[in-house]
Amino acid sequence: MKVLGLDTSTMMATCSVIDDNRLLGEYSLNQDMTHSEKLVPMIKEVLESLKLEVKDIDLYGVALGPGSFTGLRIGAATMKAFAHLFNKPIVGISTLEALAYNLPYNDIVVPMIDARRNRVYTGIYTWENGKIKEIMGPDVLEIEDILTRLKEYDKSIVNGDGALLHRDTIKAILKDKVQFATIGHNMCRATSICELAKIKHEAGQSDDLFTLAPDYLRPSQAERQLKDSNK
Amino acid sequence: MKVLGLDTSTMMATCSVIDDNRLLGEYSLNQDMTHSEKLVPMIKEVLESLKLEVKDIDLYGVALGPGSFTGLRIGAATMKAFAHLFNKPIVGISTLEALAYNLPYNDIVVPMIDARRNRVYTGIYTWENGKIKEIMGPDVLEIEDILTRLKEYDKSIVNGDGALLHRDTIKAILKDKVQFATIGHNMCRATSICELAKIKHEAGQSDDLFTLAPDYLRPSQAERQLKDSNK
Repeated sequence: MKVLGLDTSTMMATCSVIDDNRLLGEYSLNQDMTHSEKLVPMIKEVLESLKLEVKDIDLYGVALGPGSFTGLRIGAATMKAFAHLFNKPIVGISTLEALAYNLPYNDIVVPMIDARRNRVYTGIYTWENGKIKEIMGPDVLEIEDILTRLKEYDKSIVNGDGALLHRDTIKAILKDKVQFATIGHNMCRATSICELAKIKHEAGQSDDLFTLAPDYLRPSQAERQLKDSNK
Repeated sequence: MKVLGLDTSTMMATCSVIDDNRLLGEYSLNQDMTHSEKLVPMIKEVLESLKLEVKDIDLYGVALGPGSFTGLRIGAATMKAFAHLFNKPIVGISTLEALAYNLPYNDIVVPMIDARRNRVYTGIYTWENGKIKEIMGPDVLEIEDILTRLKEYDKSIVNGDGALLHRDTIKAILKDKVQFATIGHNMCRATSICELAKIKHEAGQSDDLFTLAPDYLRPSQAERQLKDSNK
């Protein structure tokens, strides 16, 4: 079963094709440009190099965010178009879960995506029996708030552009209780999207082509929810 | 500092560019074809997409094997030509160490590359204070011999094409003492080559352009050494 995965949540545009338990090809570019310009040529480049066509893909996996509004819309629209055209299933994946999936089999993995104004989109994940598991689901938090929460763990591993941006604050607060991901595991990888899409699809989950939409996890909305829950 | 990394030790041809602590671009293709056909076009594709030229690269990292004789020769020749042409440093990296580098910060990481006739190129690595460390250096062993050795650890993580090929044997012998790498961490990644080249270069290590050569770790030679040591 061939899975095409895509992640355009951040500055990293990344696409990948896996076949059963093998990575066939992956292409990632970290660029200061709109994804619209490069995305379809990237997918075309990878598929052509692998002598595959879009019709050979059995399943589509796409990052749903949180992240860049524009990037997410372009990514979801592209993959929904392919899935629709060839009548194949599509599975949407949390960008934060996919980032955490970059770091098997670490105990506490904390992806962070920059959400501007001192906040990060973040979650807390762990690995149990070879499977990734959510401890705290996607949320948008002040950097200090997530770090205070992380103090309870002996060791956390952080990744994502938010971890790069707030490196000094993270070090100052967590000291030797934190490790930073290596460069190759810091940013979004479409192979993680492919693998999670395959796992979810095999477990019977697949998304509706017409209702699948990015989960922007807007700060304003999340803040409203937080205020409501504090009432 | 921009680092271009390349790994052609196995069926996976992979090139990557990092800049300081950021991945700029990575392209990997797992193909049943000679690397010579695709290698330079892949590097060109990535550099052009990043609006970079070969002269912008400050350091070259290249996988030295063990692995495919032909792949290694093509990879080393290509990178040595670039480094020579632009008078830039080059660092050779063990393919096994780079494979282990795919799996931070796990306790015992055991890369395995198929060496034919029931043998694997393998080593044992660990992570200490965020750095990778060699416990057992590159060797070529019967699959049963490395697995017997691994029984002493509570948990090992294996990756590489050898781990895929011998999956059933590994499971049968190590049972719940082994975990297999996820798909995205199973094969060679040029980003791991870049990062290790950067680390070694910053520590003052760099290889001589004219004497740098792949380390084929030929089974016959290794077996001779083993016989000698048993005399």
